[in-house]
Amino acid sequence: MIPVTHATGRYAVHAEALAEAPRRLREAGLAPGLALVVTDTTVAGLYLDALADVLRADGWQPVPVVVPPGEGSKSLDTFAVVCDAALAAGADRRTPVLALGGGVVGDLGGFVAATVLRGLPLVHLPTTILAQVDSAIGGKTGVNTARGKNLVGAFYPPLFVLADPATLATLPEREVRSGLAEVVKHALLAGGDLFETLEMGWERLGDADMLAAVVREAAAVKARVVSADERESGARAFLNLGHTFGHALEAAAGYGTLTHGEAVAVGLRAALHLSASLAAGADAGGTLPHPFARMDALAARLAPPPVPDGVTDEAALAAMGLDKKRDRGGLRFVILDDLGAPRLAAGVPEALVRAAWRYARRVAG
Amino acid sequence: MIPVTHATGRYAVHAEALAEAPRRLREAGLAPGLALVVTDTTVAGLYLDALADVLRADGWQPVPVVVPPGEGSKSLDTFAVVCDAALAAGADRRTPVLALGGGVVGDLGGFVAATVLRGLPLVHLPTTILAQVDSAIGGKTGVNTARGKNLVGAFYPPLFVLADPATLATLPEREVRSGLAEVVKHALLAGGDLFETLEMGWERLGDADMLAAVVREAAAVKARVVSADERESGARAFLNLGHTFGHALEAAAGYGTLTHGEAVAVGLRAALHLSASLAAGADAGGTLPHPFARMDALAARLAPPPVPDGVTDEAALAAMGLDKKRDRGGLRFVILDDLGAPRLAAGVPEALVRAAWRYARRVAG
Repeated sequence: MIPVTHATGRYAVHAEALAEAPRRLREAGLAPGLALVVTDTTVAGLYLDALADVLRADGWQPVPVVVPPGEGSKSLDTFAVVCDAALAAGADRRTPVLALGGGVVGDLGGFVAATVLRGLPLVHLPTTILAQVDSAIGGKTGVNTARGKNLVGAFYPPLFVLADPATLATLPEREVRSGLAEVVKHALLAGGDLFETLEMGWERLGDADMLAAVVREAAAVKARVVSADERESGARAFLNLGHTFGHALEAAAGYGTLTHGEAVAVGLRAALHLSASLAAGADAGGTLPHPFARMDALAARLAPPPVPDGVTDEAALAAMGLDKKRDRGGLRFVILDDLGAPRLAAGVPEALVRAAWRYARRVAG
Repeated sequence: MIPVTHATGRYAVHAEALAEAPRRLREAGLAPGLALVVTDTTVAGLYLDALADVLRADGWQPVPVVVPPGEGSKSLDTFAVVCDAALAAGADRRTPVLALGGGVVGDLGGFVAATVLRGLPLVHLPTTILAQVDSAIGGKTGVNTARGKNLVGAFYPPLFVLADPATLATLPEREVRSGLAEVVKHALLAGGDLFETLEMGWERLGDADMLAAVVREAAAVKARVVSADERESGARAFLNLGHTFGHALEAAAGYGTLTHGEAVAVGLRAALHLSASLAAGADAGGTLPHPFARMDALAARLAPPPVPDGVTDEAALAAMGLDKKRDRGGLRFVILDDLGAPRLAAGVPEALVRAAWRYARRVAG
C-alpha cells in the first residue's frame, strides 16, 4: 500500500486484484447500495462483468456508464451525459463513482464525482500504466475544451486507488509504450533504484512481475511528490518534465494523432536537451554531455513514432505559448540539473527552446 | 465585516460600496491584471460600467461575460459558454472571477471559478437580497440539470464577499419580496433580534437603512451556520427550512413560474404547520398553536402569490421525492421545536406532510 497525504485528506494506492474492490469499499466506510461504474467500451469488454459480479456478490447494485474510448470522451459534452446518467440512476451523496479504465475515464469520472451533488465518493480503478503511475494519483480531475487539455476540472482526491497489475496484460503494445513514458519521467525525477532498474532491465519489461514492480515504484514516486504538494505550488510542477514540449506537440499534431505518452516521450528528450544547454550555457548541439547523455539514453528506449510531417516547428512552438502552464513572466520549463535533481527554470532564451525542440524532433522515431 | 470560517479557508463578508472592490482585491493579495466579470444583462445595465471603471482606475483589465438573466442561465450549457469565454480571454490561475449579480450569477460564476484551470480566485459581488443573505455565503456553487436544481456543482469558497447595500435600491418589488423569504427563514432559525426587528418593523423595510441592517443581520446568521458546518453534515442542513416543500413547489410549477423566494415563502408555512403537527402529535389543522402561530404570522407577511392551479397536490408531493435532500431512510424535514430551535425530523408520517402542504397552499396568496 502506497499512502498519499493531502491537506484535504489521505488515501491509499493498493496494487491488488480488482476482486478486492468490495472489501476496500467496506473498509472505506461505504454501505452497499447503488454504485456507478464509469468506464469505456474497450475496458467494459474486458473487466466490467467481472467487477460487476464481485460488487453484486457483496450487495452492491452496479450501474455501468460506458463512454466511447479515447480522448474525445474527455469533453464537457460527455461530462454532461455522464452527470445525467448518474442522476438518472438515482445517485445520492453516498453513491460511489468507480472509474474503471485509463486516464480519460479517470479524469472524466473523477470530475463527475467531484461535481454531481457537489461531490460523490470517488474510487479510481486504473487499468493502464499511465493511469496506475500517474493520472489516478494526485487528485486532478477534468476535461478538455476546444482551447486545450485539462482546462476545466477540479482537485478531488479519491477514497482510494486500486491498481490491478493483471489489467496491464491486456494493454496493446502502443499503450504499454506510451505508459512507460511517464514511468521514465518519474525515474528521471527520482533517480535511484527505479532509474537503474529501467536502465538495466528494459528488455525484461515484457515480464508481468517485472512490469508490475516498475509500475508500483513509479506510482510511489508520484505519490511522494503530490503528498508534498497537492496544489502544484512547488515540487508538483516537476511532474511537468517533458510536458510543456509534449502538450505542445500533442496539440499541434491534433489530439489523437500521437498518444499523450508518445508526445511526452518526445518532450522528455527536448527537456533533456534544454537541461544540457542550460547547464553548459549554450546550445548543447547534437550529442548531450554527461550526465544528460545517460538520461537521454533511457528516454530514447521509449522510441516514439516520428513527429508527423504536418507539424511545423513554428506550429509546435506556437502551441507552447497556449499551454496553461505559461505564467505572466513567460514560459517556464522543468529541467534537470542532474539525475533526480529537477528544478523550474524561467526566462529561458528562446534560441535554446528552439534547439531543444529540433533535437527532439530529429531523434524521435 | 462578517467573518466566515471553513475548514478550507476563511473569508469576509463586507457590506460596503462596490467601489471598494479594487482595494479588497489588493488586500487579498491579487496583483492587477485580467479580471473576469460574470454578470447578467439586467445587472450589467445597472452596475457593470461603474465597476469596470473603478477596476480600470486601479490597473485591472476587466473582461465582462454577460449571460441572460434568470434561472435558465444556471445550466451546463451556459457553464460551458462562460468557461470558454474565460479561456478565450486568456485567464490564468491568478485571474479573478467577479460574480456581479444575484443567485444565478453567483452560483454559475462560482462554478466556473471552481473549475476553470481547476480553480480561479472567486469574488462574490451580490446585488440581490437573496444573494447577499444566502447564496453568496457558504461556498456552494453549481448549476441545474433537467433533473433538478443545483445537481452539479462544487463547494468553493470565495476570496471575499462584497455586498453593496446600495444595489438593493434598484431591485424590483417582486425580487425584494422573494429575497425577504430567506431573511425570514434566517430569523426563524436564529430567533432573537432579527426576528423581533422584522416582526415590529416589517412596514419600514422600504427604508434603505432599515433594509440594509436587516440584510446584514440575516447574512450574519448564514455566516455563523456555515462556519460551523461547511459540508452540510450537521447544522447547515437547518438552512433547508421550508426548502423541501419549496423546491418541490418550484419544480412542480415549472422553473420560472414562481421565484425561488416565493416558493420558499409557501414552503416556510408548510414547514411551520408540520412543526406544529409534530409537536402536537397530530394534524395541526387550520390554525397553528403557540409558539407556531407567532412564527407563522411573520412568514405570512411574505404574501407569496397563490400556488398556480396547474400544480396538483399529487404533483407537488411527488416532486418532493425527487428532491436531492432525500435520504435512504426516506424524506427528512427541517422543523422548528420553537423559535430559534430547528432540528432534523426523519420518518415523518405522510399524512402530516400532506396536511402541511394543503395548509400552505390554502393560506398562500
